[in-house]
Amino acid sequence: MATDSWVNETLYAEWGQRFLVKRELARVQSDFQDIMVFESYSHGRVMLLDGVTQITERDEFVYQEMLTHVPLLAHGKAERVLIIGAGDGGVLRRVLQHKNVKKAVMVEIDGEVIRLAKEFMPGIAGDAWNDPRAEVIVGDGIDYVRKAADGSFDVIIVDSTDPIGVGEVLFTEEFYANSARILSAQGLIVNQCGVPFQQADELRETNIRRGKSFGDTWAYVAAVPTYVGGFMTLGWAAKDKALRSVDVETIRARAEANGIAGLTRYWTPEIHVGAFNLPPYISENL
Amino acid sequence: MATDSWVNETLYAEWGQRFLVKRELARVQSDFQDIMVFESYSHGRVMLLDGVTQITERDEFVYQEMLTHVPLLAHGKAERVLIIGAGDGGVLRRVLQHKNVKKAVMVEIDGEVIRLAKEFMPGIAGDAWNDPRAEVIVGDGIDYVRKAADGSFDVIIVDSTDPIGVGEVLFTEEFYANSARILSAQGLIVNQCGVPFQQADELRETNIRRGKSFGDTWAYVAAVPTYVGGFMTLGWAAKDKALRSVDVETIRARAEANGIAGLTRYWTPEIHVGAFNLPPYISENL
Repeated sequence: MATDSWVNETLYAEWGQRFLVKRELARVQSDFQDIMVFESYSHGRVMLLDGVTQITERDEFVYQEMLTHVPLLAHGKAERVLIIGAGDGGVLRRVLQHKNVKKAVMVEIDGEVIRLAKEFMPGIAGDAWNDPRAEVIVGDGIDYVRKAADGSFDVIIVDSTDPIGVGEVLFTEEFYANSARILSAQGLIVNQCGVPFQQADELRETNIRRGKSFGDTWAYVAAVPTYVGGFMTLGWAAKDKALRSVDVETIRARAEANGIAGLTRYWTPEIHVGAFNLPPYISENL
Repeated sequence: MATDSWVNETLYAEWGQRFLVKRELARVQSDFQDIMVFESYSHGRVMLLDGVTQITERDEFVYQEMLTHVPLLAHGKAERVLIIGAGDGGVLRRVLQHKNVKKAVMVEIDGEVIRLAKEFMPGIAGDAWNDPRAEVIVGDGIDYVRKAADGSFDVIIVDSTDPIGVGEVLFTEEFYANSARILSAQGLIVNQCGVPFQQADELRETNIRRGKSFGDTWAYVAAVPTYVGGFMTLGWAAKDKALRSVDVETIRARAEANGIAGLTRYWTPEIHVGAFNLPPYISENL
């Protein structure tokens, strides 16, 4: 790819976004996917997997904050967190910002994603890789949840690609059943569920699958600049329905106690609570 | 433009969206701007002005509902509404859905936009053009507010292009001063203020200008699929600060009394109230 050429995201066949590339930094075919990292003019450094935008330096805060702080603060006492995917380390960094967290296990199937993120986007994870509470495993998340002990985690965060290709197995009934088993009594799991204006099927189908193992399923929204197409949904499956109606003041108090207050650029207690209110065009899929 | 070619939005020089075009329907150079209407594969029919997406049939509901229902229901007794721009008629249609409304004056500077919208996107406005409460003027909105009588409107809705080119005069201090003058004691004005992740200056500068004529200025957000880049902001300037903190149940009751309940696909009372809670990356511009 030449300097100053455009890269067109290939996620949707008939509509999408494009970036003007200042400089390509890496292009690797791993065992799992095609990985591209480039310097953009508009969004800092950008990583694509199989032609689909995964993360940009400039807007990653939106997705990472909402995928992390919402489940952890809704739970309120999360000490053991399992992260599946998220090879860039951005979720790991946010999880470890929580003082309550004693252990964060991250299972990423593609070691090349981790390697390239460390080399070219080091600010995403910061020092999280070296935190003594972090355990980073290059391996199969499906296999990990199959073997993990009952009730061994409080929160599971799935930061996967869309349910096509390598990420598909993270949207199956078996995966959700094992997730329910390894979560504690107040446990919950969140995952990215695509942009429903474009991918409503993804939200609808995974919500049905989650419902077979969890008493409460729903979704919450975040407006992520480079996941184009309006709100993206983050899937929600919990054993206790009360976790998604914690009031603003309780969330605020938990954020302050956990050291999260003042660190965020998208998440606020009000946005946390409001994110569960879905537009009808989204909620009709649940 | 050939059939099945891509059209690249030109709003930002280094990033943006593109549509695969099924068929070009119209390409007109009006006295004010370059107007393109095409049939897309992904979003129904699409209108671009000077290369910038203004409206698509598939996602117009998000923007129109939030630009209309929020100010009208926040006001609660809006009978006289002034619409500036919005030549496609979508705002006019939503305004006229409100039973309280007795008069809706729409002032669009470019008659060609109205003509092309009527011909190629008739579903956007529906029968609104023929409503006896509607007065449609092809003319200059700046001039209209300059000459309108004191206190003659309850709500002003500005649906303009960005503050470049033909839309620029709708973001000036003079315009806001006249708007304040022609609004009634509980009056308010809303306008589109761009996507702050990309256009933060637009929000910041117009907010300062509005502040010179209105006691309360703020913004609220909507995640519009084809105004790419995360939340767009809708600017808010009111004489009474209380209008932006009306509670959910009051908003719900007003929507039911006005015949709005059940008509919306994005707007709900909860989303209305929550839209005023801004992420820090947006609120830091206010």
